[in-house]
Amino acid sequence: MMIYADNAATTKVSRAAIEAMIPCLEEQYGNPSSLYSLGQRAKEILEEARAKIAAAIGAEPAEITFTSGGSEADNQAIRSAAMIGKKKGKTHIISTAFEHHAVLHTLAALEKEGFTYTLLDVHEDGLVRPEELEAAIRDDTCLVTIMYANNEIGTIQPIAELGAICKKHSILFHTDAVQAVGHLPINVKEQNIDMLSSSAHKYHGPKGIGFLYARKGIRLTNLIEGGAQERGKRAGTENVAEVAAMAAALEEAVANMDRNAAHMSALRDKIIKGLSEIPHSALNGDAVKRLPGNINFCFEGIEGESLLLLLDDRGICASSGSACTSGSLDPSHVLLAIGRVHDVAHGSLRLSIGDDITEEQADYIIKNVREVVEYLRSFSPVWRDLMSGKTQFIL
Amino acid sequence: MMIYADNAATTKVSRAAIEAMIPCLEEQYGNPSSLYSLGQRAKEILEEARAKIAAAIGAEPAEITFTSGGSEADNQAIRSAAMIGKKKGKTHIISTAFEHHAVLHTLAALEKEGFTYTLLDVHEDGLVRPEELEAAIRDDTCLVTIMYANNEIGTIQPIAELGAICKKHSILFHTDAVQAVGHLPINVKEQNIDMLSSSAHKYHGPKGIGFLYARKGIRLTNLIEGGAQERGKRAGTENVAEVAAMAAALEEAVANMDRNAAHMSALRDKIIKGLSEIPHSALNGDAVKRLPGNINFCFEGIEGESLLLLLDDRGICASSGSACTSGSLDPSHVLLAIGRVHDVAHGSLRLSIGDDITEEQADYIIKNVREVVEYLRSFSPVWRDLMSGKTQFIL
Repeated sequence: MMIYADNAATTKVSRAAIEAMIPCLEEQYGNPSSLYSLGQRAKEILEEARAKIAAAIGAEPAEITFTSGGSEADNQAIRSAAMIGKKKGKTHIISTAFEHHAVLHTLAALEKEGFTYTLLDVHEDGLVRPEELEAAIRDDTCLVTIMYANNEIGTIQPIAELGAICKKHSILFHTDAVQAVGHLPINVKEQNIDMLSSSAHKYHGPKGIGFLYARKGIRLTNLIEGGAQERGKRAGTENVAEVAAMAAALEEAVANMDRNAAHMSALRDKIIKGLSEIPHSALNGDAVKRLPGNINFCFEGIEGESLLLLLDDRGICASSGSACTSGSLDPSHVLLAIGRVHDVAHGSLRLSIGDDITEEQADYIIKNVREVVEYLRSFSPVWRDLMSGKTQFIL
Repeated sequence: MMIYADNAATTKVSRAAIEAMIPCLEEQYGNPSSLYSLGQRAKEILEEARAKIAAAIGAEPAEITFTSGGSEADNQAIRSAAMIGKKKGKTHIISTAFEHHAVLHTLAALEKEGFTYTLLDVHEDGLVRPEELEAAIRDDTCLVTIMYANNEIGTIQPIAELGAICKKHSILFHTDAVQAVGHLPINVKEQNIDMLSSSAHKYHGPKGIGFLYARKGIRLTNLIEGGAQERGKRAGTENVAEVAAMAAALEEAVANMDRNAAHMSALRDKIIKGLSEIPHSALNGDAVKRLPGNINFCFEGIEGESLLLLLDDRGICASSGSACTSGSLDPSHVLLAIGRVHDVAHGSLRLSIGDDITEEQADYIIKNVREVVEYLRSFSPVWRDLMSGKTQFIL
C-alpha cells in the first residue's frame, strides 16, 4: 500500500489541471502581451482564469495578481502594506509566532529596514485570541498578517473576527491562506480580508504558481520590476499554462469542498482517535477548529525523523512539520509556539490526508504509526529513562 | 498558412519538454524538501536538471538558482550585485540604453535607493564599444550589466571582451542572456561572466521558469524570503515539473544549436534581403552580429500596429518590438537607442523565426510583408507627404 499523507506539503496535480495546462503549451502558446490572435487567445485564457479564481474567493478579477506561488504572494503583500504604512509614518506590524517563514522572514527583513513587529501568542490550542490582537494594536500599526490555517497543526483562525477588528482600526489585514484556499469556504469581502496569499499546489494545481488577492485601492509594491504584465505590478511573461491549471484545480476544489471536507474530517477524526490511544502522545492544535485533512501528534521518547523513514518503508508519506524547513535540525517553531518543549517537539508527526483517503487507508495508518512508535521506543534511551522514572513524562 | 514568427516573445513548448514535465505532475509529484522517497525522487529530478543546465553554459550546478523566469533572474542578479557593492561603498552601475525593462526598471528602483548608473550608447548598429565601457568605469562602479543579445533587434554583444574588462577592474559582470541561451554557444567561465539570466520559454521550455547563474562566492540577495529552498536564496516550493522541462528543452536546443543556427540564419538573411528591396525601409541592428532568428525592419510612412494586424490576417504572427511593452503607445526604447526617430520607430516590424521555418514560409513572409506595406502606404497621409516632397524621407 502507498498512502500519500503529506498534502500540506504538496498535492498530486489533478487531471482537470493537467488538461487545462497542456493546450497552453502546445497550441495556445502565444504571449498574452502579443497583438495577434494567438497572443490574444492566451490573454483570454489568462483572464478567464482570473475571473474563476476571483469568484472562488468572492473577489473581483482586477484584485487578483498572479505570482510564482504562496511565498512570493506573502512577500509582496507584506512589503506592499509596509510601504503604504511607511508613507503615513506607520511602521508597526502585528503577526503571530507560528506563521510560515515566508511571513516571518519578511518581517525580519523589514525589521532591518526600520519596521517593528509584535508576534501574538497562539496559545496551546494554536488559536489567536481576538482580544489579544485588539490589545496589540498601536497608533503606528500598519498591518496585521495572520495565517488562515496553520501549515503544520492545521488550526483555523477566526479570520472574519480578526478582519473586523482590523477594519475598525483602519489597519490592513493580510492572511496567508495557502493551506485554506480550496479547502475552506472563503469570502474576502464578508471576512474583511484586505490581502490574501494562495498557492496552487496545495489544492491539486501545479507547483510554481499562486496568486495574491489585494483589495481594490491597495497599491502593490513590485518584487519583480520590468514589463507591464499584471497591471505593472509583477513583471515577467505570464505563466499561462499554470494559471489555467490553477483555475481548473480551484474550481474543482470549490465544487467538491463540502463533500471532501465531510469525508476527510471523518477519517481525520478516526485517525486522531486511533493515535490518541498510543500512550504518552498528544494531538497538537485544537481538535475541532482544524483543517479537514490535518493530523499532528507528538509522541514522547522518539525522533520524528526515524518515524518518517520507517513509515516511508511501509508506504506512508508523512512529515514532521513544514516541508520548507525539513532540512533544519531545529524543532518546529510552530510546535514551540504552542508550548511544546524541544524534546517533545522533536517527536512530531504530521499527516495531511487527501480527499481520496479510504477507510482502509486510515486503518492502515493507525496500525502502522502505532507499531512504528512502539518499535522506536523499544530501543530509545530517552524512552527507557522515562519508563524508569529517571526523567518525567510531559505528555 | 500559419507562421509563428515571434519566437523572441515566446516559443511553442517542445515535446521533449512536455514529456519531462508530465510525470512530475502526476507521478513524481513529491515536494523536494520531503524526506520520504517520493520527495527525494523529486529532489533528484531537480538536481539532475540543475546539472544539465549548468553543463549547458559551462557552470557548476551549485551556481544555478531556479527562478520564475528571466525578469526575476535579472532583478535578483542586479539587486545582489548592488547590495554587495553597497557594503564596499560602491554604488555605481553601468548598463546600456537598450536593455530589457527588467534591467532598466530595476536600475531606476535602485536609483531611488541611492545608486547611480550610466547607460552606454549602443550606436546605430546596436553594439556596445568595449572601449566605451572601459571609459565609463569609475572607482565606485560595482556592476556592469549588458544584455547578451537584444530582444528586439537581435544584436549580439562582444560578451567575452566586455567580461574581460570587468574582470580586469574587479567589477561584477551580469548579462541578461534571455535571448541568447539555447541559441548561441555560451561558456560563462571562458566569457568572464559572473552572473547570467535565462528564461525557459525562449527556447521551447515552458513559461514561468528560468534560472540565474551566479559565480561561486557571489552572495545573492533574496527577492523572496521564506523557506530554505535554493540554498536559502529563493523561497517557495520548487517548480519541479517546469525545471525538468526547462532542462529538457535546453539540452535539445544545445544539441541542435549548430544545425538550427545555420538553417535559421540562412533564411533570416533571405528574408532580410527580400525586405530590403522595399523602398524606404531599413534593417535595424548589425546584419551579421545578430541572433540567427532575428529580423527587425523600419518602414517609413506606416504604423507598426496596423502592419501586425494585417499580417495576422494573413497568418503571420509578428511583433513591433518587445511583447512586454506592447500595451504601450510609446515607440520602442531600443529603436530610439540606436538612433531611429519617433516616426520611423513607430513603423517597425520584428520577425523572430523559429528553427522549423521553411524556405516556402520565408518566401510567404517576404511576399506578404511587401504587399501589406505597399497597401498601408497606399492610404497613409504620412506616406503621401513623403512622396509629394512635403516632408523628407529619412530612410
